[in-house]
Amino acid sequence: MTLKDWGYRVLPGLKWLHGYSGQDAVADLIAGVTVGLTVLPQGLAYATLAGLEPQYGLYSAFVGGIIYAMLGSCRQVTIGPTALLALMTSRHTGLGLGSGPAYAILLCLISGVVELGMAVLKLGALVDLISLPVTVGFTSATAVIIGTSQLKGLLGLRGGSGSDFINTMRSVFGNLHQVRRGDFTLGLVSIVVLLVLRKLKDVKLDGRLRSLRAQQLVSGSIWVIATGRNALVVLVTSVLAYNTCDQMDSCPYILTGKVKSGLPSLALPKFETTILDRNGTETTQNLEQMLSELGPSMLILPIIAVLGNVAISKAFGGAGLSPTRELVALSMSNICGAFCSSMPVTGSFSRSAVNHASGVRTPLGGCYTSVLVLLALGLLAPYFQYIPKAALSAVIISAVIFMIEFEVIRPLWRCSRRELLPGAITFVLSLAVGVEIGLLLGVGADVAFLVYRAARPVLSVSKLQTRNGINYILIRPKHSSLYFPAIEWVRSGISKALATHGTAPVVLDCAHVHDFDFTAARGMGSLKKELAKANVPLFLMSAHKDIGVILKESTNIDFPTIDCPDDLEPILEQSETCFAPDYVLHLQVTAPLVESRLVHCGAGEPTELSKLKEKTTS
Amino acid sequence: MTLKDWGYRVLPGLKWLHGYSGQDAVADLIAGVTVGLTVLPQGLAYATLAGLEPQYGLYSAFVGGIIYAMLGSCRQVTIGPTALLALMTSRHTGLGLGSGPAYAILLCLISGVVELGMAVLKLGALVDLISLPVTVGFTSATAVIIGTSQLKGLLGLRGGSGSDFINTMRSVFGNLHQVRRGDFTLGLVSIVVLLVLRKLKDVKLDGRLRSLRAQQLVSGSIWVIATGRNALVVLVTSVLAYNTCDQMDSCPYILTGKVKSGLPSLALPKFETTILDRNGTETTQNLEQMLSELGPSMLILPIIAVLGNVAISKAFGGAGLSPTRELVALSMSNICGAFCSSMPVTGSFSRSAVNHASGVRTPLGGCYTSVLVLLALGLLAPYFQYIPKAALSAVIISAVIFMIEFEVIRPLWRCSRRELLPGAITFVLSLAVGVEIGLLLGVGADVAFLVYRAARPVLSVSKLQTRNGINYILIRPKHSSLYFPAIEWVRSGISKALATHGTAPVVLDCAHVHDFDFTAARGMGSLKKELAKANVPLFLMSAHKDIGVILKESTNIDFPTIDCPDDLEPILEQSETCFAPDYVLHLQVTAPLVESRLVHCGAGEPTELSKLKEKTTS
Repeated sequence: MTLKDWGYRVLPGLKWLHGYSGQDAVADLIAGVTVGLTVLPQGLAYATLAGLEPQYGLYSAFVGGIIYAMLGSCRQVTIGPTALLALMTSRHTGLGLGSGPAYAILLCLISGVVELGMAVLKLGALVDLISLPVTVGFTSATAVIIGTSQLKGLLGLRGGSGSDFINTMRSVFGNLHQVRRGDFTLGLVSIVVLLVLRKLKDVKLDGRLRSLRAQQLVSGSIWVIATGRNALVVLVTSVLAYNTCDQMDSCPYILTGKVKSGLPSLALPKFETTILDRNGTETTQNLEQMLSELGPSMLILPIIAVLGNVAISKAFGGAGLSPTRELVALSMSNICGAFCSSMPVTGSFSRSAVNHASGVRTPLGGCYTSVLVLLALGLLAPYFQYIPKAALSAVIISAVIFMIEFEVIRPLWRCSRRELLPGAITFVLSLAVGVEIGLLLGVGADVAFLVYRAARPVLSVSKLQTRNGINYILIRPKHSSLYFPAIEWVRSGISKALATHGTAPVVLDCAHVHDFDFTAARGMGSLKKELAKANVPLFLMSAHKDIGVILKESTNIDFPTIDCPDDLEPILEQSETCFAPDYVLHLQVTAPLVESRLVHCGAGEPTELSKLKEKTTS
Repeated sequence: MTLKDWGYRVLPGLKWLHGYSGQDAVADLIAGVTVGLTVLPQGLAYATLAGLEPQYGLYSAFVGGIIYAMLGSCRQVTIGPTALLALMTSRHTGLGLGSGPAYAILLCLISGVVELGMAVLKLGALVDLISLPVTVGFTSATAVIIGTSQLKGLLGLRGGSGSDFINTMRSVFGNLHQVRRGDFTLGLVSIVVLLVLRKLKDVKLDGRLRSLRAQQLVSGSIWVIATGRNALVVLVTSVLAYNTCDQMDSCPYILTGKVKSGLPSLALPKFETTILDRNGTETTQNLEQMLSELGPSMLILPIIAVLGNVAISKAFGGAGLSPTRELVALSMSNICGAFCSSMPVTGSFSRSAVNHASGVRTPLGGCYTSVLVLLALGLLAPYFQYIPKAALSAVIISAVIFMIEFEVIRPLWRCSRRELLPGAITFVLSLAVGVEIGLLLGVGADVAFLVYRAARPVLSVSKLQTRNGINYILIRPKHSSLYFPAIEWVRSGISKALATHGTAPVVLDCAHVHDFDFTAARGMGSLKKELAKANVPLFLMSAHKDIGVILKESTNIDFPTIDCPDDLEPILEQSETCFAPDYVLHLQVTAPLVESRLVHCGAGEPTELSKLKEKTTS
């Protein structure tokens, strides 16, 4: 391996520098600055949402860009603070004294370490367990929680905004008489302006302007204004507040207040901190107590972070990306971030979309964003204090309302109503109890359904005749495997079939069954013995050789196997048992929960099988 | 409905009385008395195992027989105290003062109520989730724990025997110097005698004796002795102890001690009790505290009870029994038992086997057992105090050693090694931490595997040609459904196939796939778009109409469907994309964890598919 190969391996980002042209640099610079203008107001707002001083949002916004440029592989991804992680962080920042930043930074470090562990153990696939309805339920609930948590800032109510939906609502509605007109007006106008500017992007100018150049100029300006709308609103409202509030006492708006100027110090995260306990006395917490306070967040926050990141790199990078490399890049962004006082970070969908739209060419664009954030920390920080809180709340609210997704409800209702359940569980419990519980129980409901599917395969049962008129009962399990939870179901299905159709040889069609486990094989053994007592032979049809071996090894019983029903004739004619061929042909399909779902589906007329089922299901 | 039908419905047991002949009565009487002679020593022993006074074992032994005769439907089942439930009960009887019986009886009531709930909600199927390896691991661990817990009694060591394997072992080995010779000798001899008598049943006398009558007589006696061996050993050792111990001070054996004579009072379970807390002071516990002490036992004990009962009625009654009716009978046995000071009860496998072997004809046999137990409580109780503890320990040990099952390990090792894992997890954790944790995590491991199977279906990927030489890539998922955890796997499988084999139309063979969910359908939509960008068309083959509808409804994309590969030709010849037909035929099967397990299986020579796989798996 040459030195160059080795370098590429350790720092994949080096390959961007290879053949990095001036054009690439200009494109990346423009995109990087555009993203920077988005992350500045968002960072300040998300830090407040997380219960931290505003500068921590900026501290979190520059490390990810540099690290991802070195380690990542999808040019559009921008890593930094997000509303969701800020909300999850806010659960642990309300303990008073200096503990907020200490907890946020420790959580950032731990998230990075857990993500690294997930990368090493290849556990990134855990996010596959989160289905789309659960994702939608989760992000929608988060959007609602974040939105309501910003109502206070929007209405000019004082007091911290917790992460608890119900308490926030109660506190807002209990204090409606204290709403400050100035803040409310400013916030509402900001939201309307932000939404209008967002919509502006979609305006088509085709042919309205005469010269092509003018048209390019106008549409270019519109695009810049629409993309930089957050920065624009924050700038305008700050100038307004700066001019209005000569004396701070009579200021009609609550302002952000002092933002600490300068870069964060490069330091180890703090492994102990001081909090105010419930009695209001100062208590020192050591690392163990801090970890126990963070609790399940240490696992759930990284999983959510990975989920977000995977969603973004999938949306922009396709399936060609290495999930492990992405996970390492995310992990290192958090670990290195923790040394620069960052709160937990992950890929931001909205900023990645801005990055993409701004024509970024390599992940190096992130470096320009980082430089801009560092400049802002050094030079602009004194002016940040004039940003009205209502404007920041407006920025957050007009970002998160688009996270509430109603549009999946309709197709789900039409085609797969049972999938609404995990989504609804996630949404309701996230609001009522907490986002972690909601997510876990939503996934639990989905997993329970997978188990139910494996435990209760659809059995198609038919009473049929061979060519020469020998009756037999054909049982066809519609699942690719027969495992422990299903075998009792199959056994009782066969019993019921015999009770319904009278005694006849039973043929188990294994064409679709690829696997038996030990429990199921033993169950088949008992079934065979039981049927033998009643003089009913049991045959396997189209069974893969492997299945015969598993059954033989597990039970020491030979299961006669046939390839097609007519093979029954020579076997049964030799055997002593005799079956009267006087049964009518009859088809019955046991149809649990899922099988019949398409009956509700508007688009598809009932298929032949469904029609048949409706007639024959008992 | 006539009065008779109604009566049968409410008390199914009435039907046994219909046409109950003298012969039936005699057969049931003999079987009932035989079972009674087994349950008397077992009841005394299991009550001690549960940490209660011996009479509670007998209180538990008579209600089940009567209730089951009225409500049950499998003649062999006998309900009463079992070693397993006694062990689980013993966790909550060590809190001192009068709290032991109070907890045991409350647990009995709660178990009954939970079982009734399971019957109503049809949750009896939950036991399907416990696979055979987990069952074996669980019962084996229980047998080891019970066996070691009886070492103290066998060795004549004083002090209570806890339910904790590790502490018991430590305490036994720490006190080996205090072993009492008398108890140890008596216990050892008892075990040997019990095992020899047990083996005696298998002795065949064919032709050794001249007259048929003598042979019948001898084999009859042998059967009686072998079946009543527990009662016999207890009787002989008690007589020995009664004669040896004139003065209690010089007695070489530790005796059972006073057994309270007379029937239990018919009373409500106690909903509060007094315990000794850790500081040794008396504390009153109310119902809430008692429930919190019982904790997960309130759910796990009934599930174990149902599992045992289901196993027995399955073994003796076949698949024809109604699980719900059995559950109701078990539930009522516990609920009614709780009013007669019973500890939790369930079907006993060993006594049911005795019942079966004794020729029981109807569940009314249980009534005769109950009468015998009541008589013993009234008349024999004063003599029970002379039963040596070592003899009772011998009874338990020689019963539970047959619960340790090694024989499933060999077939599992040969055919399905991965299934050893849940069994081993259950066994080791049951010993190390506790039987509940062991069972739950064993089931968890099994469920995780089910989810893994659904998330990582085997994909068979082939590069093929149509008759006229058009190349295509055939992807065949070997699972009956594509759900949320699997879709990313399928997408990346297709990406890899394209990267390996070069660009060619992709055909997804859905012949074995019966179901898509919303997440998977949306994933297919993104995949189709992604492939379309690379000019790769995606076709579904042999897809059921339902699947097309789900995909269309979820994604608003039409997926072209073909019936066989040759259908590609007219479609692709019309389309603009052109594929050079210069690829070689190549077969690749991605084979995760499970698919290759038969390679290890001694009995079966590798099948053709497996051979192929070994050659081509990369």
